[in-house]
Amino acid sequence: MRREKLVAGIEAGITSMHGLIAHGRGEAFDYLIGERTMDSALQATEVAAAILVSAKKPVLSVNGNVAALASAEMVTLSRLIDAPLEVNIFYRTEARVKRIKELLERSGAKRVLGEMPDARLASIEHARGLVARDGIYTADVVLAPLEDGDRCEALIAMGKKVIAIDLNPLSRTSRYATVSIVDDVQRALRNIITIIRGKNPDRNADPDSILANYDNNRILRAAINEIAGRLVNLG
Amino acid sequence: MRREKLVAGIEAGITSMHGLIAHGRGEAFDYLIGERTMDSALQATEVAAAILVSAKKPVLSVNGNVAALASAEMVTLSRLIDAPLEVNIFYRTEARVKRIKELLERSGAKRVLGEMPDARLASIEHARGLVARDGIYTADVVLAPLEDGDRCEALIAMGKKVIAIDLNPLSRTSRYATVSIVDDVQRALRNIITIIRGKNPDRNADPDSILANYDNNRILRAAINEIAGRLVNLG
Repeated sequence: MRREKLVAGIEAGITSMHGLIAHGRGEAFDYLIGERTMDSALQATEVAAAILVSAKKPVLSVNGNVAALASAEMVTLSRLIDAPLEVNIFYRTEARVKRIKELLERSGAKRVLGEMPDARLASIEHARGLVARDGIYTADVVLAPLEDGDRCEALIAMGKKVIAIDLNPLSRTSRYATVSIVDDVQRALRNIITIIRGKNPDRNADPDSILANYDNNRILRAAINEIAGRLVNLG
Repeated sequence: MRREKLVAGIEAGITSMHGLIAHGRGEAFDYLIGERTMDSALQATEVAAAILVSAKKPVLSVNGNVAALASAEMVTLSRLIDAPLEVNIFYRTEARVKRIKELLERSGAKRVLGEMPDARLASIEHARGLVARDGIYTADVVLAPLEDGDRCEALIAMGKKVIAIDLNPLSRTSRYATVSIVDDVQRALRNIITIIRGKNPDRNADPDSILANYDNNRILRAAINEIAGRLVNLG
Protein backbone atom coordinates (compact mmCIF):
# COMPACT_ATOMS: atom_id res chain seq x y z
CA MET A 1 0.00 0.00 0.00
CA ARG A 2 2.88 2.36 0.81
CA ARG A 3 4.36 1.47 -2.59
CA GLU A 4 1.14 2.32 -4.38
CA LYS A 5 0.96 5.65 -2.53
CA LEU A 6 4.46 6.53 -3.69
CA VAL A 7 3.85 5.52 -7.30
CA ALA A 8 0.67 7.63 -7.17
CA GLY A 9 2.86 10.40 -5.68
CA ILE A 10 5.15 10.25 -8.70
CA GLU A 11 2.19 10.43 -11.03
CA ALA A 12 0.86 13.44 -9.08
CA GLY A 13 4.26 15.16 -9.31
CA ILE A 14 4.86 14.97 -5.54
CA THR A 15 7.44 12.21 -5.15
CA SER A 16 10.76 12.04 -7.01
CA MET A 17 12.20 8.95 -8.65
CA HIS A 18 15.11 9.08 -6.22
CA GLY A 19 12.47 9.12 -3.49
CA LEU A 20 11.23 5.73 -4.70
CA ILE A 21 14.72 4.25 -4.38
CA ALA A 22 15.10 5.79 -0.92
CA HIS A 23 11.78 4.24 0.05
CA GLY A 24 13.00 0.85 -1.11
CA ARG A 25 16.01 1.16 1.21
CA GLY A 26 13.63 1.90 4.07
CA GLU A 27 11.43 -1.06 3.10
CA ALA A 28 14.38 -3.43 3.46
CA PHE A 29 15.00 -2.20 7.01
CA ASP A 30 11.30 -2.28 7.85
CA TYR A 31 11.20 -5.89 6.71
CA LEU A 32 14.11 -6.66 9.04
CA ILE A 33 12.42 -4.75 11.88
CA GLY A 34 9.25 -6.76 11.33
CA GLU A 35 7.10 -3.82 10.23
CA ARG A 36 6.24 -2.78 13.79
CA THR A 37 7.49 -0.24 16.32
CA MET A 38 10.47 -1.54 18.30
CA ASP A 39 10.66 -0.81 22.04
CA SER A 40 13.74 1.35 21.46
CA ALA A 41 11.87 3.36 18.80
CA LEU A 42 8.95 3.87 21.17
CA GLN A 43 11.34 5.29 23.80
CA ALA A 44 12.70 7.74 21.23
CA THR A 45 9.15 8.60 20.19
CA GLU A 46 8.14 9.47 23.77
CA VAL A 47 11.09 11.83 24.07
CA ALA A 48 10.33 13.33 20.63
CA ALA A 49 6.72 14.02 21.65
CA ALA A 50 7.83 15.70 24.88
CA ILE A 51 10.32 17.93 23.05
CA LEU A 52 7.84 18.86 20.31
CA VAL A 53 5.22 20.10 22.78
CA SER A 54 7.73 22.01 24.90
CA ALA A 55 9.59 23.60 21.97
CA LYS A 56 9.43 27.38 21.65
CA LYS A 57 9.34 27.29 17.85
CA PRO A 58 8.89 23.83 16.39
CA VAL A 59 8.71 23.33 12.63
CA LEU A 60 7.64 20.17 10.80
CA SER A 61 9.59 19.52 7.60
CA VAL A 62 7.81 17.79 4.70
CA ASN A 63 9.49 16.29 1.63
CA GLY A 64 8.02 14.37 -1.29
CA ASN A 65 7.98 10.95 0.35
CA VAL A 66 6.55 12.31 3.61
CA ALA A 67 3.82 14.08 1.64
CA ALA A 68 2.94 10.91 -0.26
CA LEU A 69 3.06 8.60 2.74
CA ALA A 70 1.88 10.63 5.72
CA SER A 71 0.46 14.04 4.81
CA ALA A 72 -2.65 13.51 6.97
CA GLU A 73 -0.53 12.67 10.02
CA MET A 74 1.81 15.65 9.45
CA VAL A 75 -1.18 17.99 9.25
CA THR A 76 -2.79 16.51 12.37
CA LEU A 77 0.43 16.93 14.35
CA SER A 78 0.92 20.44 13.01
CA ARG A 79 -2.51 21.47 14.28
CA LEU A 80 -2.11 19.60 17.57
CA ILE A 81 1.06 21.47 18.56
CA ASP A 82 0.32 24.63 16.56
CA ALA A 83 3.52 24.37 14.50
CA PRO A 84 3.91 25.29 10.84
CA LEU A 85 4.73 22.75 8.16
CA GLU A 86 7.59 23.58 5.81
CA VAL A 87 7.98 21.99 2.39
CA ASN A 88 11.65 21.12 2.16
CA ILE A 89 12.57 18.82 -0.72
CA PHE A 90 15.86 17.43 -1.88
CA TYR A 91 15.30 17.63 -5.65
CA ARG A 92 13.67 21.05 -5.54
CA THR A 93 11.43 22.25 -8.33
CA GLU A 94 8.99 25.07 -7.70
CA ALA A 95 6.18 23.02 -9.27
CA ARG A 96 6.77 20.15 -6.87
CA VAL A 97 6.90 22.48 -3.84
CA LYS A 98 3.60 24.00 -4.93
CA ARG A 99 1.92 20.62 -5.38
CA ILE A 100 3.05 19.42 -1.94
CA LYS A 101 1.82 22.66 -0.35
CA GLU A 102 -1.55 22.25 -2.06
CA LEU A 103 -1.79 18.63 -0.92
CA LEU A 104 -1.10 19.66 2.68
CA GLU A 105 -3.65 22.46 2.49
CA ARG A 106 -6.27 20.10 1.06
CA SER A 107 -5.50 17.85 4.05
CA GLY A 108 -6.36 20.72 6.41
CA ALA A 109 -3.00 22.44 7.00
CA LYS A 110 -3.30 25.96 8.37
CA ARG A 111 0.23 27.21 7.68
CA VAL A 112 2.60 25.81 5.07
CA LEU A 113 5.98 27.47 4.52
CA GLY A 114 8.65 26.76 1.93
CA GLU A 115 7.20 28.15 -1.26
CA MET A 116 9.23 31.34 -1.04
CA PRO A 117 12.40 30.48 0.88
CA ASP A 118 14.32 33.53 2.10
CA ALA A 119 17.22 31.94 4.00
CA ARG A 120 19.83 29.25 3.44
CA LEU A 121 21.46 26.50 5.45
CA ALA A 122 25.23 27.05 5.51
CA SER A 123 27.43 24.56 3.64
CA ILE A 124 24.53 23.04 1.71
CA GLU A 125 24.39 23.33 -2.08
CA HIS A 126 22.13 26.21 -3.10
CA ALA A 127 18.79 24.60 -4.05
CA ARG A 128 19.04 22.06 -1.26
CA GLY A 129 19.85 24.62 1.40
CA LEU A 130 16.87 26.92 0.82
CA VAL A 131 14.60 27.34 3.84
CA ALA A 132 12.10 29.82 5.26
CA ARG A 133 13.55 32.38 7.69
CA ASP A 134 10.41 32.27 9.80
CA GLY A 135 10.39 28.47 9.60
CA ILE A 136 13.25 25.99 9.74
CA TYR A 137 15.89 28.75 9.78
CA THR A 138 14.81 30.11 13.17
CA ALA A 139 13.18 26.98 14.62
CA ASP A 140 14.52 25.54 17.86
CA VAL A 141 13.15 22.05 17.15
CA VAL A 142 12.76 20.55 13.67
CA LEU A 143 10.88 17.34 13.03
CA ALA A 144 12.57 16.07 9.85
CA PRO A 145 11.22 12.68 8.74
CA LEU A 146 13.19 10.93 5.95
CA GLU A 147 15.76 13.74 5.99
CA ASP A 148 19.00 13.87 4.04
CA GLY A 149 22.18 13.44 6.12
CA ASP A 150 23.86 16.68 5.01
CA ARG A 151 20.87 18.78 5.91
CA CYS A 152 20.42 17.04 9.23
CA GLU A 153 24.07 17.77 10.01
CA ALA A 154 23.65 21.44 9.00
CA LEU A 155 20.62 21.86 11.26
CA ILE A 156 22.48 20.34 14.20
CA ALA A 157 25.47 22.62 13.50
CA MET A 158 23.08 25.58 13.80
CA GLY A 159 22.26 24.44 17.35
CA LYS A 160 18.79 23.12 16.60
CA LYS A 161 17.29 19.98 18.03
CA VAL A 162 16.43 17.61 15.19
CA ILE A 163 13.97 14.75 15.50
CA ALA A 164 14.56 12.26 12.69
CA ILE A 165 12.29 9.44 11.55
CA ASP A 166 14.38 7.01 9.52
CA LEU A 167 14.16 3.23 9.21
CA ASN A 168 17.93 2.92 8.80
CA PRO A 169 19.64 3.17 12.19
CA LEU A 170 23.01 3.49 10.43
CA SER A 171 22.09 6.42 8.18
CA ARG A 172 23.91 9.71 8.61
CA THR A 173 20.59 11.30 9.53
CA SER A 174 20.02 8.77 12.33
CA ARG A 175 23.55 9.32 13.60
CA TYR A 176 23.41 13.12 13.57
CA ALA A 177 19.89 13.71 14.86
CA THR A 178 19.16 14.68 18.46
CA VAL A 179 16.41 12.05 18.65
CA SER A 180 16.32 9.31 16.02
CA ILE A 181 13.10 7.36 15.68
CA VAL A 182 13.95 4.15 13.79
CA ASP A 183 10.46 3.45 12.53
CA ASP A 184 8.16 3.85 9.56
CA VAL A 185 7.12 7.48 9.12
CA GLN A 186 3.39 6.87 9.41
CA ARG A 187 3.69 4.58 12.43
CA ALA A 188 6.02 7.03 14.17
CA LEU A 189 3.79 10.04 13.53
CA ARG A 190 0.71 8.19 14.73
CA ASN A 191 2.57 7.24 17.89
CA ILE A 192 3.63 10.86 18.49
CA ILE A 193 0.02 12.01 18.03
CA THR A 194 -1.30 9.31 20.38
CA ILE A 195 1.27 10.19 23.04
CA ILE A 196 0.53 13.92 22.88
CA ARG A 197 -3.23 13.35 22.98
CA GLY A 198 -3.13 10.66 25.67
CA LYS A 199 -0.33 11.73 27.99
CA ASN A 200 -0.63 15.47 27.54
CA PRO A 201 3.12 16.13 28.06
CA ASP A 202 4.17 19.29 29.92
CA ARG A 203 4.24 22.25 27.53
CA ASN A 204 6.40 24.22 29.94
CA ALA A 205 9.08 21.57 30.32
CA ASP A 206 12.64 22.42 29.33
CA PRO A 207 13.70 20.42 26.23
CA ASP A 208 17.29 20.31 27.49
CA SER A 209 16.30 18.67 30.76
CA ILE A 210 14.17 16.13 28.86
CA LEU A 211 17.27 15.29 26.82
CA ALA A 212 19.57 15.16 29.85
CA ASN A 213 18.36 11.64 30.60
CA TYR A 214 18.22 10.46 26.99
CA ASP A 215 21.02 8.65 25.16
CA ASN A 216 20.34 8.56 21.42
CA ASN A 217 23.36 6.34 20.74
CA ARG A 218 22.04 3.75 23.13
CA ILE A 219 18.68 3.79 21.30
CA LEU A 220 20.41 3.33 17.94
CA ARG A 221 22.56 0.48 19.24
CA ALA A 222 19.43 -1.23 20.59
CA ALA A 223 17.78 -0.90 17.17
CA ILE A 224 20.85 -2.28 15.39
CA ASN A 225 21.11 -5.23 17.75
CA GLU A 226 17.43 -6.01 17.38
CA ILE A 227 17.67 -5.92 13.57
CA ALA A 228 20.79 -8.10 13.53
CA GLY A 229 19.13 -10.61 15.85
CA ARG A 230 16.02 -10.81 13.68
CA LEU A 231 18.14 -11.20 10.55
CA VAL A 232 19.85 -14.27 12.01
CA ASN A 233 16.53 -15.68 13.26
CA LEU A 234 14.83 -15.16 9.89
CA GLY A 235 17.65 -16.96 8.06
CA MET B 1 25.76 5.62 -10.61
CA ARG B 2 23.42 2.63 -10.43
CA ARG B 3 20.67 5.01 -9.30
CA GLU B 4 21.25 7.31 -12.25
CA LYS B 5 21.15 4.34 -14.64
CA LEU B 6 17.78 3.31 -13.24
CA VAL B 7 16.32 6.80 -13.37
CA ALA B 8 17.54 7.00 -16.98
CA GLY B 9 15.93 3.58 -17.47
CA ILE B 10 12.58 4.97 -16.33
CA GLU B 11 12.93 7.90 -18.68
CA ALA B 12 13.77 5.49 -21.55
CA GLY B 13 10.69 3.38 -20.71
CA ILE B 14 12.77 0.37 -19.67
CA THR B 15 12.51 0.33 -15.87
CA SER B 16 9.26 0.42 -13.91
CA MET B 17 8.60 2.59 -10.88
CA HIS B 18 8.20 -0.55 -8.79
CA GLY B 19 11.63 -1.52 -10.11
CA LEU B 20 13.09 1.59 -8.47
CA ILE B 21 11.65 0.60 -5.09
CA ALA B 22 12.96 -2.94 -5.53
CA HIS B 23 16.38 -1.51 -6.34
CA GLY B 24 16.29 0.53 -3.15
CA ARG B 25 15.68 -2.65 -1.14
CA GLY B 26 18.72 -4.18 -2.80
CA GLU B 27 20.78 -1.05 -2.08
CA ALA B 28 20.10 -1.41 1.64
CA PHE B 29 21.42 -4.97 1.61
CA ASP B 30 24.39 -3.99 -0.56
CA TYR B 31 25.26 -1.31 1.96
CA LEU B 32 25.19 -3.92 4.73
CA ILE B 33 27.28 -6.30 2.60
CA GLY B 34 29.82 -3.53 2.06
CA GLU B 35 29.28 -3.27 -1.72
CA ARG B 36 31.66 -6.12 -2.53
CA THR B 37 31.38 -9.82 -3.32
CA MET B 38 31.26 -11.93 -0.17
CA ASP B 39 33.20 -15.22 -0.05
CA SER B 40 29.94 -17.15 0.18
CA ALA B 41 28.61 -15.34 -2.92
CA LEU B 42 31.79 -16.16 -4.83
CA GLN B 43 31.33 -19.85 -4.02
CA ALA B 44 27.77 -19.70 -5.39
CA THR B 45 29.06 -17.82 -8.45
CA GLU B 46 31.63 -20.54 -9.24
CA VAL B 47 28.90 -23.18 -9.12
CA ALA B 48 26.58 -21.00 -11.23
CA ALA B 49 29.28 -20.57 -13.90
CA ALA B 50 29.91 -24.33 -14.02
CA ILE B 51 26.20 -25.09 -14.39
CA LEU B 52 25.67 -22.45 -17.05
CA VAL B 53 28.42 -23.80 -19.33
CA SER B 54 27.36 -27.43 -18.87
CA ALA B 55 23.61 -26.78 -19.32
CA LYS B 56 21.92 -28.35 -22.35
CA LYS B 57 19.61 -25.40 -22.89
CA PRO B 58 20.42 -22.37 -20.73
CA VAL B 59 18.35 -19.19 -21.01
CA LEU B 60 19.20 -15.78 -19.53
CA SER B 61 16.18 -13.87 -18.25
CA VAL B 62 16.21 -10.06 -18.48
CA ASN B 63 13.79 -7.71 -16.72
CA GLY B 64 13.69 -3.91 -16.62
CA ASN B 65 16.19 -3.44 -13.80
CA VAL B 66 18.62 -5.98 -15.26
CA ALA B 67 18.41 -4.22 -18.64
CA ALA B 68 19.09 -0.82 -17.05
CA LEU B 69 21.90 -2.01 -14.78
CA ALA B 70 23.71 -4.76 -16.65
CA SER B 71 22.62 -5.16 -20.27
CA ALA B 72 26.23 -5.22 -21.53
CA GLU B 73 27.16 -8.03 -19.13
CA MET B 74 24.03 -10.05 -19.98
CA VAL B 75 24.83 -9.79 -23.69
CA THR B 76 28.49 -10.74 -23.14
CA LEU B 77 27.48 -13.80 -21.13
CA SER B 78 24.85 -14.75 -23.69
CA ARG B 79 27.45 -14.77 -26.47
CA LEU B 80 30.05 -16.50 -24.33
CA ILE B 81 27.85 -19.52 -23.59
CA ASP B 82 25.74 -19.24 -26.74
CA ALA B 83 22.48 -18.92 -24.82
CA PRO B 84 19.50 -16.76 -25.77
CA LEU B 85 18.32 -13.83 -23.72
CA GLU B 86 14.62 -13.66 -22.88
CA VAL B 87 12.86 -10.45 -21.90
CA ASN B 88 10.71 -11.41 -18.94
CA ILE B 89 9.25 -8.48 -17.03
CA PHE B 90 6.96 -8.31 -14.05
CA TYR B 91 4.85 -5.32 -15.09
CA ARG B 92 4.53 -6.42 -18.71
CA THR B 93 3.69 -3.95 -21.43
CA GLU B 94 4.49 -4.75 -25.05
CA ALA B 95 6.19 -1.36 -25.49
CA ARG B 96 8.53 -2.00 -22.59
CA VAL B 97 9.40 -5.51 -23.83
CA LYS B 98 10.19 -4.05 -27.26
CA ARG B 99 12.42 -1.32 -25.81
CA ILE B 100 14.36 -3.80 -23.69
CA LYS B 101 14.82 -6.09 -26.70
CA GLU B 102 16.10 -3.15 -28.77
CA LEU B 103 18.51 -2.13 -26.01
CA LEU B 104 19.92 -5.67 -25.84
CA GLU B 105 20.26 -5.82 -29.61
CA ARG B 106 22.05 -2.47 -29.68
CA SER B 107 24.41 -3.93 -27.05
CA GLY B 108 25.24 -6.79 -29.45
CA ALA B 109 22.74 -9.50 -28.53
CA LYS B 110 22.31 -12.16 -31.21
CA ARG B 111 19.08 -13.76 -30.03
CA VAL B 112 16.46 -12.09 -27.84
CA LEU B 113 13.21 -13.92 -27.04
CA GLY B 114 10.16 -12.74 -25.16
CA GLU B 115 8.46 -10.42 -27.59
CA MET B 116 5.97 -13.03 -28.73
CA PRO B 117 5.51 -15.39 -25.77
CA ASP B 118 3.75 -18.64 -26.72
CA ALA B 119 3.75 -20.52 -23.40
CA ARG B 120 2.82 -19.89 -19.79
CA LEU B 121 4.20 -20.75 -16.37
CA ALA B 122 1.56 -22.67 -14.40
CA SER B 123 -0.01 -20.95 -11.38
CA ILE B 124 1.27 -17.50 -12.33
CA GLU B 125 -1.19 -14.73 -13.19
CA HIS B 126 -1.57 -14.44 -16.96
CA ALA B 127 0.65 -11.48 -18.00
CA ARG B 128 3.35 -12.43 -15.49
CA GLY B 129 3.42 -16.06 -16.55
CA LEU B 130 4.03 -15.50 -20.26
CA VAL B 131 7.27 -17.02 -21.59
CA ALA B 132 8.74 -18.26 -24.86
CA ARG B 133 8.26 -21.98 -25.54
CA ASP B 134 11.69 -22.19 -27.14
CA GLY B 135 13.18 -20.16 -24.29
CA ILE B 136 12.46 -20.25 -20.57
CA TYR B 137 9.62 -22.78 -20.99
CA THR B 138 11.89 -25.55 -22.25
CA ALA B 139 15.19 -24.41 -20.68
CA ASP B 140 16.99 -26.73 -18.28
CA VAL B 141 18.88 -23.89 -16.58
CA VAL B 142 17.55 -20.33 -16.18
CA LEU B 143 19.70 -17.45 -15.02
CA ALA B 144 17.13 -15.13 -13.44
CA PRO B 145 18.71 -12.05 -11.86
CA LEU B 146 16.41 -9.92 -9.67
CA GLU B 147 13.59 -12.41 -10.18
CA ASP B 148 10.20 -12.37 -8.50
CA GLY B 149 9.63 -15.09 -5.87
CA ASP B 150 6.48 -16.57 -7.44
CA ARG B 151 8.10 -17.01 -10.81
CA CYS B 152 11.24 -18.49 -9.30
CA GLU B 153 9.07 -20.99 -7.43
CA ALA B 154 7.15 -21.86 -10.64
CA LEU B 155 10.39 -22.49 -12.55
CA ILE B 156 11.69 -24.75 -9.79
CA ALA B 157 8.35 -26.62 -9.72
CA MET B 158 8.84 -27.31 -13.47
CA GLY B 159 12.10 -29.09 -12.61
CA LYS B 160 14.42 -26.38 -13.91
CA LYS B 161 17.64 -25.29 -12.26
CA VAL B 162 17.36 -21.59 -11.39
CA ILE B 163 20.36 -19.37 -10.74
CA ALA B 164 19.25 -16.25 -8.85
CA ILE B 165 21.16 -13.04 -8.32
CA ASP B 166 19.54 -11.19 -5.43
CA LEU B 167 21.06 -8.98 -2.73
CA ASN B 168 18.49 -10.10 -0.17
CA PRO B 169 19.45 -13.51 1.21
CA LEU B 170 16.01 -13.76 2.86
CA SER B 171 13.95 -13.12 -0.28
CA ARG B 172 11.66 -15.87 -1.57
CA THR B 173 13.72 -15.95 -4.76
CA SER B 174 16.93 -16.57 -2.79
CA ARG B 175 15.22 -19.28 -0.77
CA TYR B 176 13.71 -21.09 -3.77
CA ALA B 177 16.56 -20.88 -6.28
CA THR B 178 18.91 -23.79 -6.97
CA VAL B 179 21.92 -21.47 -6.68
CA SER B 180 21.46 -18.06 -5.03
CA ILE B 181 24.15 -15.47 -5.64
CA VAL B 182 23.75 -12.82 -2.93
CA ASP B 183 25.49 -10.02 -4.77
CA ASP B 184 24.93 -6.99 -6.98
CA VAL B 185 23.78 -8.03 -10.45
CA GLN B 186 26.65 -6.35 -12.31
CA ARG B 187 29.34 -7.63 -9.95
CA ALA B 188 27.91 -11.16 -10.09
CA LEU B 189 27.68 -11.22 -13.89
CA ARG B 190 31.23 -9.90 -14.25
CA ASN B 191 32.41 -12.63 -11.89
CA ILE B 192 30.59 -15.31 -13.89
CA ILE B 193 32.16 -14.00 -17.12
CA THR B 194 35.64 -13.89 -15.57
CA ILE B 195 35.29 -17.43 -14.23
CA ILE B 196 34.11 -18.84 -17.56
CA ARG B 197 36.86 -17.05 -19.49
CA GLY B 198 39.62 -17.80 -17.00
CA LYS B 199 38.85 -21.25 -15.70
CA ASN B 200 37.18 -22.65 -18.80
CA PRO B 201 34.80 -24.95 -16.86
CA ASP B 202 33.99 -28.37 -18.32
CA ARG B 203 31.18 -28.07 -20.89
CA ASN B 204 30.49 -31.79 -20.67
CA ALA B 205 30.10 -31.90 -16.89
CA ASP B 206 26.80 -33.07 -15.45
CA PRO B 207 25.00 -30.19 -13.67
CA ASP B 208 23.52 -32.63 -11.15
CA SER B 209 26.93 -33.86 -10.07
CA ILE B 210 28.16 -30.27 -9.75
CA LEU B 211 25.22 -29.64 -7.43
CA ALA B 212 25.72 -32.84 -5.45
CA ASN B 213 28.44 -31.14 -3.42
CA TYR B 214 26.73 -27.76 -3.14
CA ASP B 215 24.52 -26.66 -0.24
CA ASN B 216 22.60 -23.49 -1.15
CA ASN B 217 21.15 -23.15 2.36
CA ARG B 218 24.63 -23.12 3.85
CA ILE B 219 25.60 -20.33 1.42
CA LEU B 220 22.52 -18.30 2.38
CA ARG B 221 23.17 -18.77 6.09
CA ALA B 222 26.77 -17.63 5.62
CA ALA B 223 25.52 -14.49 3.83
CA ILE B 224 22.99 -13.76 6.57
CA ASN B 225 25.57 -14.20 9.32
CA GLU B 226 28.05 -11.97 7.53
CA ILE B 227 25.44 -9.22 7.05
CA ALA B 228 24.31 -9.44 10.70
CA GLY B 229 27.92 -9.26 11.88
CA ARG B 230 28.64 -6.21 9.75
CA LEU B 231 25.46 -4.53 10.95
CA VAL B 232 26.56 -4.83 14.57
CA ASN B 233 30.10 -3.68 13.73
CA LEU B 234 28.85 -0.68 11.76
CA GLY B 235 26.60 0.39 14.65
